[in-house]
Amino acid sequence: MSVTAPQGFEAAGVAAGLKSTGKPDVAVVVNRGPLKVGAAVFTSNRAKANPIIWSERSVQDGVVEAIVLNSGGANCFTGSFGFQTTHQTAEKAAELLGVSAGDVLVCSTGLIGTGDEVFRAKVLGGTAQAIAELSADGGEAASLAIMTTDSRPKRAAHTQDGWTIGGMAKGAGMLAPGLATMLVVITTDAVLTAEEADAHLRHATRLSFDRLDSDGCMSTNDQVTLMASGASGITPDPDAFREALAEICTILAEQLQGDAEGASHDITIFVQNAASEDDALEVGRSVARNNLFKAAIFGNDPNWGRVLAAIGTTQAAFDPYDVDVWMNGVRVCAAGGPDRPREEVDLTPRATAVMIDLKVGTASARILTNDLTHDYVHENSAYSS
Amino acid sequence: MSVTAPQGFEAAGVAAGLKSTGKPDVAVVVNRGPLKVGAAVFTSNRAKANPIIWSERSVQDGVVEAIVLNSGGANCFTGSFGFQTTHQTAEKAAELLGVSAGDVLVCSTGLIGTGDEVFRAKVLGGTAQAIAELSADGGEAASLAIMTTDSRPKRAAHTQDGWTIGGMAKGAGMLAPGLATMLVVITTDAVLTAEEADAHLRHATRLSFDRLDSDGCMSTNDQVTLMASGASGITPDPDAFREALAEICTILAEQLQGDAEGASHDITIFVQNAASEDDALEVGRSVARNNLFKAAIFGNDPNWGRVLAAIGTTQAAFDPYDVDVWMNGVRVCAAGGPDRPREEVDLTPRATAVMIDLKVGTASARILTNDLTHDYVHENSAYSS
Repeated sequence: MSVTAPQGFEAAGVAAGLKSTGKPDVAVVVNRGPLKVGAAVFTSNRAKANPIIWSERSVQDGVVEAIVLNSGGANCFTGSFGFQTTHQTAEKAAELLGVSAGDVLVCSTGLIGTGDEVFRAKVLGGTAQAIAELSADGGEAASLAIMTTDSRPKRAAHTQDGWTIGGMAKGAGMLAPGLATMLVVITTDAVLTAEEADAHLRHATRLSFDRLDSDGCMSTNDQVTLMASGASGITPDPDAFREALAEICTILAEQLQGDAEGASHDITIFVQNAASEDDALEVGRSVARNNLFKAAIFGNDPNWGRVLAAIGTTQAAFDPYDVDVWMNGVRVCAAGGPDRPREEVDLTPRATAVMIDLKVGTASARILTNDLTHDYVHENSAYSS
Repeated sequence: MSVTAPQGFEAAGVAAGLKSTGKPDVAVVVNRGPLKVGAAVFTSNRAKANPIIWSERSVQDGVVEAIVLNSGGANCFTGSFGFQTTHQTAEKAAELLGVSAGDVLVCSTGLIGTGDEVFRAKVLGGTAQAIAELSADGGEAASLAIMTTDSRPKRAAHTQDGWTIGGMAKGAGMLAPGLATMLVVITTDAVLTAEEADAHLRHATRLSFDRLDSDGCMSTNDQVTLMASGASGITPDPDAFREALAEICTILAEQLQGDAEGASHDITIFVQNAASEDDALEVGRSVARNNLFKAAIFGNDPNWGRVLAAIGTTQAAFDPYDVDVWMNGVRVCAAGGPDRPREEVDLTPRATAVMIDLKVGTASARILTNDLTHDYVHENSAYSS
């Protein structure tokens, strides 16, 4: 499982003292080749952490030798000193691995504003330690070292036609389009060009991580990276690879949803018969971001009025008086009016399905979100991030 | 105080059985003239309640004789039966008052989807009862009858140069631009034309209710109505009246903020030195709607990183690395980096001030919001609205 499932990768996760708990906090994933193909997508937040600024530049040539990730500090809004820390991290890894610093990506997660000299020393020390401990079964250790408020690591792997895709993810809040507070590393031993890796990754993230909207808050540090070693020697069927990559990303996204801070319901919002996919997404997101709807689900209240009030704020094509809403299989609203009694809806299971039928077209989309709970408020009022 | 402070108005509030608590739930405000000038602004939600659909049409000629308001049921998504209920309410009031039904506005608030035959009978009965009890000091009773989860009524009045403005408001959640779940009635005995009333009201709401964003959720039922009786016989200085009306609306907006569901902090977000007022508003709203920021304030955590992460999602002109953030008078972030230690910020008072200096222009704006608390989640998971 995880990022060392495919051939050609080594990884490690170590405790460098960034986390006050003493838990692992620095991970390294290295591509031993023969190919060193890399692609990445980044937060669309204009407030970008220093590792994002660094990695955006470094990935442009499509060559990635290694990635260094730390939890315990976001290195965001830490000025030029913080950028130098990221730069030195890449240089340190490059020196020890015998590669170019420009081919080493860096990710950080944790409290914004953290990035002083102590942070720098620990990140550099952890990077050296992790590289010393690299192994072909280090994927699990790496997945542990990137956790912040995650209650469990997120890992996935898939093998098909002689090639393998593996992945790890972290993120338990601030999940929103733009890949908020989400660090994901995907590896594969399939033979890909840089252009293919980029196209496949953008396709997969658009259908998976971009449709996970836990709390509408977009982070400054998010990055999803794909590295291809070509070590299987197999050039995959493009459609098969694209589909498998999207599936791995969806599995990881669902793991993130299932571990969202304080959530008691995993809500899947299906929007169907929209005029366009964009409309379906806008409608789905408007519901996913509506605090009143999310609080109602926490209270096991099938409050379809809040669904309609949310979608009424969108520009999507639909007639508010010809919309159906289903909750966990019960049509609670038909043609914009009450239908089945709310007592028929059982919202006690964690998995919750809301289906919205706009009745104007043939497009659809699926958005993943969570409910708004006491524990969400507690974790995010007590934990600085 | 309230809507009967100006001359020429009578009001009443009665218990018609819509609220299971037996508290007052139907209010009527009547303009006895001599002028019957009216103006109103409505929710921008495309999912409009039946009273909104009715009142939007009725106010178009600038003549308003009376307004009937009920709590205990939103009469939204209740189909043509619900629209007929609104129509019958206006007709009932018109018949008893000897005016035209087209000059009677209607407002409803409460649970979406509520509007059956029992609801209709109670609203019609309450309307008749309230009209029977109309009096020139009924403003307080009316303000009580429009409350839903409000813990206290909202009222204001102002007298100047021989004319008076009075007002009442309800709303304790779903406060967002578009006047969400907010019913407001403003009265004045100043002499105004319909055009003046409309222009003054739009100016005032833009600066007051539109800048109150409690939880980013927009309601289906919101309406702010201004009625002018001309009973003072005084034509006010337009600038003085405009300013006084904006002030009354701001006072009522602050009362709504101060009573927002479950809130423990009233947060005022000042955005200054923006390139435009629109930019300042976009930046202010992005912070006001950020759950992580709002939860941090609940936890008395001066988490400026979440402020920067929120404004990074906007399109406003600014350099993320040249923004200052002040919390309760302490500059915690200077030029996009840490400044004064967070320990210096005292967030224990309910009144919280966040100032964001974008350093790119001269425009500014003020947004009012609240924190995200356990009690907010509790009230909105336990109360169906």
